[in-house]
Amino acid sequence: MHRIARAPASSANIGPGFDALAVALKLYVEVELTSRPGGLHVVTEGHGSHLPVGPSHLAAQVACEVLGHDRFELRVRSQIPVARGLGSSASLAVAAAAAAGAKDPFAYGFSVDGHPENAAASAMGGLMVAAVVDGAPVARHLRLDPDIRFVVVVPDTQLATSRARGTLPDMVPHEDAAFNLGRLGLLVAGLADHTQLLAAAGDDRLHQDQRRSLFPEAPQLLAGLREAGALTSCWSGAGPSMLGICDVDDAGAVAVSARSLMARLGLDGEVLELEADLEWTVVQEFF
Amino acid sequence: MHRIARAPASSANIGPGFDALAVALKLYVEVELTSRPGGLHVVTEGHGSHLPVGPSHLAAQVACEVLGHDRFELRVRSQIPVARGLGSSASLAVAAAAAAGAKDPFAYGFSVDGHPENAAASAMGGLMVAAVVDGAPVARHLRLDPDIRFVVVVPDTQLATSRARGTLPDMVPHEDAAFNLGRLGLLVAGLADHTQLLAAAGDDRLHQDQRRSLFPEAPQLLAGLREAGALTSCWSGAGPSMLGICDVDDAGAVAVSARSLMARLGLDGEVLELEADLEWTVVQEFF
Repeated sequence: MHRIARAPASSANIGPGFDALAVALKLYVEVELTSRPGGLHVVTEGHGSHLPVGPSHLAAQVACEVLGHDRFELRVRSQIPVARGLGSSASLAVAAAAAAGAKDPFAYGFSVDGHPENAAASAMGGLMVAAVVDGAPVARHLRLDPDIRFVVVVPDTQLATSRARGTLPDMVPHEDAAFNLGRLGLLVAGLADHTQLLAAAGDDRLHQDQRRSLFPEAPQLLAGLREAGALTSCWSGAGPSMLGICDVDDAGAVAVSARSLMARLGLDGEVLELEADLEWTVVQEFF
Repeated sequence: MHRIARAPASSANIGPGFDALAVALKLYVEVELTSRPGGLHVVTEGHGSHLPVGPSHLAAQVACEVLGHDRFELRVRSQIPVARGLGSSASLAVAAAAAAGAKDPFAYGFSVDGHPENAAASAMGGLMVAAVVDGAPVARHLRLDPDIRFVVVVPDTQLATSRARGTLPDMVPHEDAAFNLGRLGLLVAGLADHTQLLAAAGDDRLHQDQRRSLFPEAPQLLAGLREAGALTSCWSGAGPSMLGICDVDDAGAVAVSARSLMARLGLDGEVLELEADLEWTVVQEFF
């Protein structure tokens, strides 16, 4: 058996869409699985290759669970920065499950942390809404305007999602919950047709401000992206990456401005200019 | 001057979309405005004709505000039940503003109660998301599958929106705010393509259960609509009307079942089977 599966990174939450929205981005993790009677062997390249290889590696755990044994070799090649708010764990789990022949890689991506939106985008591509219904993850595609590009500011600092979740309050004003609902509707309308996308559609009251203490430069980056021409801007996942949502014609200039801004703020890192990935997880099989 | 304007009723909130979504329905109020040098005269027919006519009538107030004088006659003909959760006030304000020649009837509909979603649907038709951004109402169209029909259970009891708002808590669990965001995304995906509409997409944690004390039969009606074949069901606006969202092929049977259920529950009222109204407010001018 020999299978190669490729899954895209994803940017979740997207402003008001806390725990609900995610978009797949053209930045990939590839997992190559080959039978190996001698037992598990894991080789990693690219982002995440500093993590311990062996049975505790997420890709190995997922593939073991799918196959029911560990007689395989895994080669993991990743372009997705780890713990930056780009859904690297969900992408890896989806790719590993697909490489192991799972019928529903989405479910394996979901089981990583019990949140379905990153996994949905990595498994199904495009712009997804996802939720847990009666304990099971469900997801649906939403229309995404092909003229939208994503400028992603990726600082060199890591931010664990679990730590970012710890900053959220137990209770929120009813008014803030309603605020996010209206903005989410405006965002979905604007992502379907970028000419209808308002800057305010990226605004949020449920997680971004609450997480600011973890990344104090966030408000300046978000404002800077909008000033540079992004239609709107928001945190990517639980951060620290920031997302500028742009008209294809403006994305280059926004990325240039974002690089200058990072330099002015004294932040190390990179700025990526990405298209949405509209394909499902791609699997190649060799027998 | 002689103008006739017609605006549709609307059903707001739509399950998880509290204060955010509304759909225009083919049920109308028509306002006919004619110059009358002798001063204001108001004539009403149909629903709402029990309300006092004169300067305090909402249509007269709005038309006065638009025109800056009261030298006109208004004839108001309404098919929209009052205080039932069908946006009758917003529809009337939009129609009166349009009949008076306002450039932006939506703004006048919004000013009735400071909530933009009913007014947006009445002024612009179809499925709308609306919010207040920097004090101003904004709205965007969302895709609505033309194969969807709305079965509306309209009990004979009135429920003032102000009273319904009084039942809402100041604070809600963060988890419930996130719950509604996920459901709203699923709902928007399902309203764009009814084959993708999950029953769970109509679920809500921010207003429906909290308002149950005002209309104890609501849960049975909501469950009954789904059991009878509605794809999902929810409160219409602040109630007491209930909305069944149906495939066009099932709407007739759902309406029949809903009538039986009302009878079994001992509820007076009517059940309407309605299409969405996809036109803007229609204005005819005669000079």
